Amino acid sequence: MQIGFIGTGVMGTGMIMNLLKAGYEVKVFNRTKAHAQTVLKAGAKWADSPKAATENSDFVLSIVGFPQDVEEIYFGKDGILSVATPKQVLIDMTTSSPAIDRRIADYAQNADLHVLDAPVSGGDIGARKGTLTIMVGGDAKDFRRAKKIFSVLGSRIEYFGGPGMGQQAKMANQIMIAGTMVGMCEALAYARAAGLDLDQICSTINSGAAANWSLENYGPRILRQDYTPGFFAKHFLKDLRIALEEADRMHLNLPGTDRAKELYEKLVVQKRLGNDGTQALVKLYWK
Amino acid sequence: MQIGFIGTGVMGTGMIMNLLKAGYEVKVFNRTKAHAQTVLKAGAKWADSPKAATENSDFVLSIVGFPQDVEEIYFGKDGILSVATPKQVLIDMTTSSPAIDRRIADYAQNADLHVLDAPVSGGDIGARKGTLTIMVGGDAKDFRRAKKIFSVLGSRIEYFGGPGMGQQAKMANQIMIAGTMVGMCEALAYARAAGLDLDQICSTINSGAAANWSLENYGPRILRQDYTPGFFAKHFLKDLRIALEEADRMHLNLPGTDRAKELYEKLVVQKRLGNDGTQALVKLYWK
Repeated sequence: MQIGFIGTGVMGTGMIMNLLKAGYEVKVFNRTKAHAQTVLKAGAKWADSPKAATENSDFVLSIVGFPQDVEEIYFGKDGILSVATPKQVLIDMTTSSPAIDRRIADYAQNADLHVLDAPVSGGDIGARKGTLTIMVGGDAKDFRRAKKIFSVLGSRIEYFGGPGMGQQAKMANQIMIAGTMVGMCEALAYARAAGLDLDQICSTINSGAAANWSLENYGPRILRQDYTPGFFAKHFLKDLRIALEEADRMHLNLPGTDRAKELYEKLVVQKRLGNDGTQALVKLYWK
Repeated sequence: MQIGFIGTGVMGTGMIMNLLKAGYEVKVFNRTKAHAQTVLKAGAKWADSPKAATENSDFVLSIVGFPQDVEEIYFGKDGILSVATPKQVLIDMTTSSPAIDRRIADYAQNADLHVLDAPVSGGDIGARKGTLTIMVGGDAKDFRRAKKIFSVLGSRIEYFGGPGMGQQAKMANQIMIAGTMVGMCEALAYARAAGLDLDQICSTINSGAAANWSLENYGPRILRQDYTPGFFAKHFLKDLRIALEEADRMHLNLPGTDRAKELYEKLVVQKRLGNDGTQALVKLYWK
């Protein structure tokens, strides 16, 4: 069983390692070859293009940065769709725009190809440990075929419906996280301004009705001024923009998410801190 | 040991029942006597005023609705301060304004009285079960004296420092919750508009990096259209207003909390749904 895998970033690397460990042959492509060294040393084969990674693979997985990267690896010259066949299942795991995944699905239907959108949550740690949550959209039959692959990568695999529905589920997830991140940063900023003990505040408010994963995981990092990315602020901003575009399309107004997007825009665009982790949002408030 | 207790609302009732069970004599006052029937039947004595509840009590606890209610029961005619003595500890457990609790503390210092601010979190269920989180500000010696009472009411008792610091901790808690509530309501609104299965969305996103107490507890209530108050929307709006006033005083800008306050204002003032629970915020988004 051969897997083509496009994207050897922090997420892709962990996922490829697990596929190799599970005994799959993996052929990888990445825009910057240097970033593929870890998986190449571990036994992955190199492919010179998305097209080369696709050829002769049973499954083609991709997890890249931005929606335009997804578009390029699928529709671009030497892209996946230039050689894909009906025997394969093509699975985009990037958190991308539901619109793009629907466009890929439309193309696939006309060309009798099999595609799934399957974004993940759980971060670099989840990717490494194989405990990702995988949110899948596409044809149910294709989902069943891909399930054995997903089970190597994640511990929770959920099928949400037709093309784009995996992305929609992921957007709901990111909207929820926008709330916990903004709330956490403002709570910590307030506590600091009030002269409260921040360790005590973190542990106390995380034991009751305010408890949440962001506070549990990022609170301590913020207190030791660790802004290294579990998840890049620039990628989170991208997700919020997609979510708000889709909400617009559905005539849905999300004022809280909109405010969160404005704040992350300030962090990423104005303060140029997009390569920090999402918890760096607190820097907007620190005096 | 006699305890005066002012306020037999949904929180006070649960707390008084636990004090009675623990063997304390409790003398209660409430603006509306009819709402005291449960605790009177259980053995509490009736007092005709905050003053009457204060006389001869070793501890005087209060948990009422709004900061102006706290002001009235403390400073008003027949109020607590009209008869309080240096032998007592006066404990306001209302989520109130740090400014008012500092004012009470100033008065107390001049009159050689002992006061603590000790707001709680954990809701009606925590009050009933005696598992509240209690956030305490005031003199450390007074805190140590009151600890045996707190341990009957709560399972987590935290001393945060001088007068008003319990309120400040509670405000940080409410700011965090503003984030989880807004995020949850917008995530569910988005998921519904996208046609996702809401039960599946709740359980999936609550298993990963978006996990939080609000989604865990209010998500299911929203899905069965249960808007009964665990916590009144009108009280939460009050808390957010206090938090933002204090933030202003500290020259701290909290755009996310500000947005949350605007949304709860819309719910409470415009839609007149202040007697619903905080989860009713989702009604702003449901089409």
